[in-house]
Amino acid sequence: MSRAFNFSSGPGAIPEPVLTQARDEMLEWSSARASVMEISHRGKHFIALAEQAEADLRALLAIPSNYKVLFLQGGATQHFAQIPMNLAAGASADYIVTGQWGQKAAKEAKPYAAVRIAASSEADQFFKLPARESWQLDASAAYVHYTPNETIQGVEFHDIPDVGAVPLVADMSSNILSQPVDVSRFGLIYAGAQKNIGASGLVVLIVREDLLARCPANIAGIFNYAAHAKEGSMLNTPNTFGWYLAGLTFQWLLREGGLAEMGRRNADKARRLYDYIDASGFYSNPIEKAARSRMNVPFRLADEALDDAFLKQSEAAGLMALKGHRSVGGMRASIYNAMPMAGVDALIAFMRDFAQRHG
Amino acid sequence: MSRAFNFSSGPGAIPEPVLTQARDEMLEWSSARASVMEISHRGKHFIALAEQAEADLRALLAIPSNYKVLFLQGGATQHFAQIPMNLAAGASADYIVTGQWGQKAAKEAKPYAAVRIAASSEADQFFKLPARESWQLDASAAYVHYTPNETIQGVEFHDIPDVGAVPLVADMSSNILSQPVDVSRFGLIYAGAQKNIGASGLVVLIVREDLLARCPANIAGIFNYAAHAKEGSMLNTPNTFGWYLAGLTFQWLLREGGLAEMGRRNADKARRLYDYIDASGFYSNPIEKAARSRMNVPFRLADEALDDAFLKQSEAAGLMALKGHRSVGGMRASIYNAMPMAGVDALIAFMRDFAQRHG
Repeated sequence: MSRAFNFSSGPGAIPEPVLTQARDEMLEWSSARASVMEISHRGKHFIALAEQAEADLRALLAIPSNYKVLFLQGGATQHFAQIPMNLAAGASADYIVTGQWGQKAAKEAKPYAAVRIAASSEADQFFKLPARESWQLDASAAYVHYTPNETIQGVEFHDIPDVGAVPLVADMSSNILSQPVDVSRFGLIYAGAQKNIGASGLVVLIVREDLLARCPANIAGIFNYAAHAKEGSMLNTPNTFGWYLAGLTFQWLLREGGLAEMGRRNADKARRLYDYIDASGFYSNPIEKAARSRMNVPFRLADEALDDAFLKQSEAAGLMALKGHRSVGGMRASIYNAMPMAGVDALIAFMRDFAQRHG
Repeated sequence: MSRAFNFSSGPGAIPEPVLTQARDEMLEWSSARASVMEISHRGKHFIALAEQAEADLRALLAIPSNYKVLFLQGGATQHFAQIPMNLAAGASADYIVTGQWGQKAAKEAKPYAAVRIAASSEADQFFKLPARESWQLDASAAYVHYTPNETIQGVEFHDIPDVGAVPLVADMSSNILSQPVDVSRFGLIYAGAQKNIGASGLVVLIVREDLLARCPANIAGIFNYAAHAKEGSMLNTPNTFGWYLAGLTFQWLLREGGLAEMGRRNADKARRLYDYIDASGFYSNPIEKAARSRMNVPFRLADEALDDAFLKQSEAAGLMALKGHRSVGGMRASIYNAMPMAGVDALIAFMRDFAQRHG
């Protein structure tokens, strides 16, 4: 056996140099004479690691100095609830729903905010994005929440929506670090790590510091973003291995040329795959072209009776985890930063061969 | 450099065979053709891992079948808040405070329960445990919370207190798996993983299933233990690497002879260290003998002006992380399962030599 091209939607592929370094340092990290997992988060060794990781992320995303960066736990799902708990405190918040993760974010927010669905593309089966002009925004909303990339549907915003003065909150779990982004347009950005940052169990949260004044006193400190910011994400023991692995990924991204280079590669990978699908006459993607995701590419075969054969043969060809989400069916190729062009080319070559044999 | 004897209080030492296996499998785990961090938590490979880990933990602790085992996130601190949120829902709960972690548990619970301090040894500087007869328990409390081992103070309960019919809730973060324990005496046991289970970012929670009926509907699903139990701890993406590492530790414990053997080793390690401290005439431990922790051994030097020299020299001798908690001062040797007798013997030899040179 050997490592395959891994199209998993998440936990997803991690850059091999990151894994190699983690392997080589597993028993002894830096000069700590222990694994990075075995040392105090409050000791000088780990503090230096944590600060470097934050500095590297700030460099990659050009995060303005009036934003705090937090390294938290619980997955994006926990923050579906924690964001309204901190920023709305029972008041009204607007949600833009363009897929299942946006739906879930709105649902988990309900105990903590008056959730308004200001726009939804559900009636269009999430095949396109609701036109900005159709959004029914409330100028007094605590924030506007949206999902820049929907992992399951394969729908992505290709620009940042203008929502006026209301803080824009973005669940960037599946497209953070995939291209440059203007952080100053957002009130809060958050992302589970297990797609483009590292391993599951870590959430990176970037929040404009004036919004932290909203965090209410009547919640436990452990749920309070202002308290976490004050303690440098060390209010309690953080996920130290997750933080370390994120740091390795940030350094890999910097070595590879940063987010501009990632953006070029990701656009190229996605273009090649969609172009092949559209031209194939055998595979299809239902998403409106302007809204197609660069990260998650769902596609169907001409005959779904061939799905099992496609999955078995693709796996045998070293192309893993292509099965689509159960709610959508068909296939899905997730092509995050860690997926090289060679993997996309191998997928296209396999798809072409399969289509010729079964078309 | 090489690996040292690691007395860190947490994140603490991990058994070397666990780290070695994690290293060897870092790029390719099992037949997944990917790292264990790069695969779906819902795929057959990870599901098998997750089930094995739970089965091994059940075997180690002889967990009765009417208890659910959850693998969650957020650290014990998050569950300081989540436990009252789920089990008290605003009603009264009793807290037994025998150190700083018990204090913190009570504080974080306050937004979600009417916290009653039913007993506290704070007036005794936490040097002993409050006599069971002195506890002012409320028979109608939602639960009684206590901390079987206080990591900072080095105080441990050596039997399970009888609290009648009220469910007993235990933060076992720093002594879980250190000896056999009668799980049926508890309503809920929880533990952060970073001391005796594995890496930080994972919490293991063992809960009697009838208590899950209390979990209220007016909290987000992600905070609801019943919802997590229903979904097998996969309501959202769990900390998959943390779960994997916990599983490796459970298998190591089974190979080593299980918790009875761990209990013998830990008792022996602690006895040797306390016996030396008491006999030394140079070092001292302030805790009442009947309440001394087998896991965390704080001690002071005869002259605190020697603390810096002790720390520098012990580190040079390959004995790491002996500095005591800032609130207590002096030294602390944490001797969890992963600390071999050889490490304790090396510590005692160093302490004896240091005392001779400076006494």
